[in-house]
Amino acid sequence: MSPQPVLVVGSIGLDDVETPFGKAQGVLGGSAVYASAAASLFAPVRFVGVCGEDLPADAFEFLRARGVDLSGLERVAGGKTFRWAGRYHFDMNARDTLLTELNTLATFDPKVPPAWRQTPFVFLGNLLPSIQGKVLDQLPSRPVLAVLDTMNYWIENAPSDVKAAAAIRRMGPSSVVVKKGEHGALLFTDGRVFAAPALPLEEVFDPTGAGDAFAGGFVGSLAAEGRVDEPSLRRAVIAGSAVASFCVERFSVEGLRDRSPKEIEARIAQFRELAHWS
Amino acid sequence: MSPQPVLVVGSIGLDDVETPFGKAQGVLGGSAVYASAAASLFAPVRFVGVCGEDLPADAFEFLRARGVDLSGLERVAGGKTFRWAGRYHFDMNARDTLLTELNTLATFDPKVPPAWRQTPFVFLGNLLPSIQGKVLDQLPSRPVLAVLDTMNYWIENAPSDVKAAAAIRRMGPSSVVVKKGEHGALLFTDGRVFAAPALPLEEVFDPTGAGDAFAGGFVGSLAAEGRVDEPSLRRAVIAGSAVASFCVERFSVEGLRDRSPKEIEARIAQFRELAHWS
Repeated sequence: MSPQPVLVVGSIGLDDVETPFGKAQGVLGGSAVYASAAASLFAPVRFVGVCGEDLPADAFEFLRARGVDLSGLERVAGGKTFRWAGRYHFDMNARDTLLTELNTLATFDPKVPPAWRQTPFVFLGNLLPSIQGKVLDQLPSRPVLAVLDTMNYWIENAPSDVKAAAAIRRMGPSSVVVKKGEHGALLFTDGRVFAAPALPLEEVFDPTGAGDAFAGGFVGSLAAEGRVDEPSLRRAVIAGSAVASFCVERFSVEGLRDRSPKEIEARIAQFRELAHWS
Repeated sequence: MSPQPVLVVGSIGLDDVETPFGKAQGVLGGSAVYASAAASLFAPVRFVGVCGEDLPADAFEFLRARGVDLSGLERVAGGKTFRWAGRYHFDMNARDTLLTELNTLATFDPKVPPAWRQTPFVFLGNLLPSIQGKVLDQLPSRPVLAVLDTMNYWIENAPSDVKAAAAIRRMGPSSVVVKKGEHGALLFTDGRVFAAPALPLEEVFDPTGAGDAFAGGFVGSLAAEGRVDEPSLRRAVIAGSAVASFCVERFSVEGLRDRSPKEIEARIAQFRELAHWS
């Protein structure tokens, strides 16, 4: 099967981020942005999201240049873009949310352009489940793969990775990925588990968006292969991990901006070296 | 090179353990016990430790039956064995220490029997660094490999796995393993990193001793191979992870008691399946 396009629906944000390494103010963020930047390293992307007039007109130029179709971008006249401000602690695993202003995201009513409704690969970023459902309701048939990111609530209250994954699989999804940040990711499929490491980095510069970058790389890799089975899912987890490792090396989406296929390949080779034993 | 013996020095304890799954009172524990139980699955073990008269006379029978030489066991007349009591939280990553009574461990002055002083593989469990040093001082030459476990202090105050490992390697050790419990382990050697997953278990019954079991399996595997290089170190990390996964399935040392070589092999094969991608 040939490479397939990916439909990405999620948030667009302007973020204020403070880490032990510095501050970034009003920088581009949001799950749809990180995921598109990541997925477009592997496959064509169709982008659905909402923003206000305060977003710089050229903010998405780098995505467009990389083949992201922005026909689904809704810019609300007089509206303000979703804002998030957060501060990371020294160990980077904990963060304080200092500000959440939903703004145009509060009334986000995602509309999938008719020509995109048969997109075989779909990624729905961390949004209210009811909004994610609205997207799926617009699709006339089940896509080859729908990837849903979930809310912090389910992460924080899960009894254990294994039990949570099993419970989610009982609800319907055939595969569950538990993203564990610096501890890597677990892929649960039918009776099988795959554990992927994260790249051990001396400095994590800014963890914002790493999970969305992972998800974008994951679904992008599967779309590029055009199939979803155990081997391609495992490769996709590694692809997502590789992209996430680029993401955290810089503020905002900077770490994803100018990555070449060669760099991605080299990073994936690093993961092979990292996890290999015989 | 043929299989080599391992010298194990560490604590012997009587533990009271409370987990969400139950309680165990006055059960066998201690770093030397867990590590010997684990290492002896791979190689002959020489055991040095101290206990009181309150320890049941047959407490170490299972170790002896598995070829652990207990000539270095010091039983202090009228003395009491080191006691530790702890309670694990629901997520099993945090525990409260409810009691620490050093007893005979307070004046532990480990004596390595002369015939054992050239043992090529050495494991020193989590003890005061000064006590660990006293053991090394008794050895006429550097062993092929000395493995030292470290104190909680260094773990809790480390800035990041990568930086901590680099700092320790600058002090002398050629290899550093960062044990991350349910998140696996990282092996840092000369410019290389190996990431091993932990086996995702639905229930971790009792995490006590998992780190010592890992260390014992690690050094035991290296002793069995009789060599220390990058491939054997990576295999040793997997062997340690496999043994640790058995350890946490039961209270105290029960999970290590009756393991057969076949079970170890099968568990190692599970790790291969867990981490493999192509």
